[in-house]
Amino acid sequence: MIRMAGKPVADLLRESIRQQAEERVKNCGPIVLAIIVVGDDPASHVYKDRLVKLAATIGVVTKVKLLPAETTQQQLMATILALNVDDNIQGILPMMPLPKGLDGAAIGAAIAVEKDVDCLNPANVGNVSLGQSPWAPCTPRSAMAILRHYGIELAGKHAVVVGRSNVVGKPLAMQLLAADATVTICHSRTPDLGAMTRTADVLVAAAGVPRLIKADMVKPGAVVVDVGIHQEGDQLVGDVDGSVAEVASALTPVPGGVGTVSSMMVMQRLVMGCKEQ
Amino acid sequence: MIRMAGKPVADLLRESIRQQAEERVKNCGPIVLAIIVVGDDPASHVYKDRLVKLAATIGVVTKVKLLPAETTQQQLMATILALNVDDNIQGILPMMPLPKGLDGAAIGAAIAVEKDVDCLNPANVGNVSLGQSPWAPCTPRSAMAILRHYGIELAGKHAVVVGRSNVVGKPLAMQLLAADATVTICHSRTPDLGAMTRTADVLVAAAGVPRLIKADMVKPGAVVVDVGIHQEGDQLVGDVDGSVAEVASALTPVPGGVGTVSSMMVMQRLVMGCKEQ
Repeated sequence: MIRMAGKPVADLLRESIRQQAEERVKNCGPIVLAIIVVGDDPASHVYKDRLVKLAATIGVVTKVKLLPAETTQQQLMATILALNVDDNIQGILPMMPLPKGLDGAAIGAAIAVEKDVDCLNPANVGNVSLGQSPWAPCTPRSAMAILRHYGIELAGKHAVVVGRSNVVGKPLAMQLLAADATVTICHSRTPDLGAMTRTADVLVAAAGVPRLIKADMVKPGAVVVDVGIHQEGDQLVGDVDGSVAEVASALTPVPGGVGTVSSMMVMQRLVMGCKEQ
Repeated sequence: MIRMAGKPVADLLRESIRQQAEERVKNCGPIVLAIIVVGDDPASHVYKDRLVKLAATIGVVTKVKLLPAETTQQQLMATILALNVDDNIQGILPMMPLPKGLDGAAIGAAIAVEKDVDCLNPANVGNVSLGQSPWAPCTPRSAMAILRHYGIELAGKHAVVVGRSNVVGKPLAMQLLAADATVTICHSRTPDLGAMTRTADVLVAAAGVPRLIKADMVKPGAVVVDVGIHQEGDQLVGDVDGSVAEVASALTPVPGGVGTVSSMMVMQRLVMGCKEQ
């Protein structure tokens, strides 16, 4: 079985992204990413720390805005709008999900289209769906980068995506479709999930349910991408059970798979030529 | 077999839409739809004539702009932008496809979000994909209205959509998903189409290929929606072969099915309360 680790994918991208950053800084000045963290969700802080550290190695400046959990919708909106019109800010990334009571969709829709590095603005979502932009959200782009890196053929294959979230399931389905896969989207209302997943040549688990996909739900030889990440005791586990390693021909590990490449995808979006923006 | 004709669906909607139009005219003044036809594609003129006739029975005013086939991108864009800022125009609908050489995607993206009755602007596409707007393009909304009218259960069913166009396949897949169906999208690169379509409880043919779906590609008892329409000699045929009537439990006719309801969907979008716009 091929272990589709994320690190080699990120490492290979790192140098070209660093060079693009250098080029861009020379032509258009510093690249500054504003990261907004509301409240103290541990996963959000872990991801924020990872982004700050990675950005430094790429040549991207980060500005972290820490807001208290009690921040109101209006206050958060004002923060976004101020960043939108600030010429010294090139990208805006609020850590999701926001604390209860805040409307994440409205916040995403408020981010200026050209600063929206994680494809939260509906205009960017639409352009991806229409096939007019490659800048889908970072997690599905990470999954696609891993599949490409490990030479997984997608054209004409049957890809089954488990999960229909706006941040992973739906945009990933659109990207797999654009890569000429036949695509099935399953979800919590799919009555016999195993019957569906067993038809997959490429299976993507993005349901947010720990160890949901067991060995008997996977066709022998299938390629499996695990987008889940859950704390289980002192261990991190994905949406895919360990037993799947026995039947899959290739599998992304958790940790060390899709998540490892996602932060690099943020940088890739940030360093694109200033004239393209 | 149930013949899922479009006329009863349109007839049932007509009266409530007419009443909504009346209400809206009283509160906010006339409802005016600008229809733009570039060149002399016969299908575009047929659809334009149908819209004009229907609008008159609903209480919607139509303004038809006929532009020559030689119209440049810049001229068409200027027409759109002028309609965008014209307070006397509530909806803008360019007949698609545009003549060769014109960029339909750019034209769609230029239409003001609130006047974009057929969901051509990427921001509207994104909002539909994110589940934040019900206003998908009119043809997939027509297919959904027919399925609803004939009491077809979608939750937990396997819906297979053949075709991945931006105007039908993709938005219809998103709507079926929102209705809790498990959704598969097939297309020209799907290697064994019949194997996929035979797994469908609800099969939607939107490939643009005359008589593509034959009886042996349909599971006995499946519900079949035919979105295709093609001139074949002096006859109109769909993407579904006549033989399918022998195996399907329900089928939309062509002509007289999805196409019959599409123009009513334009009106439904136009008459929504002025405060919602």
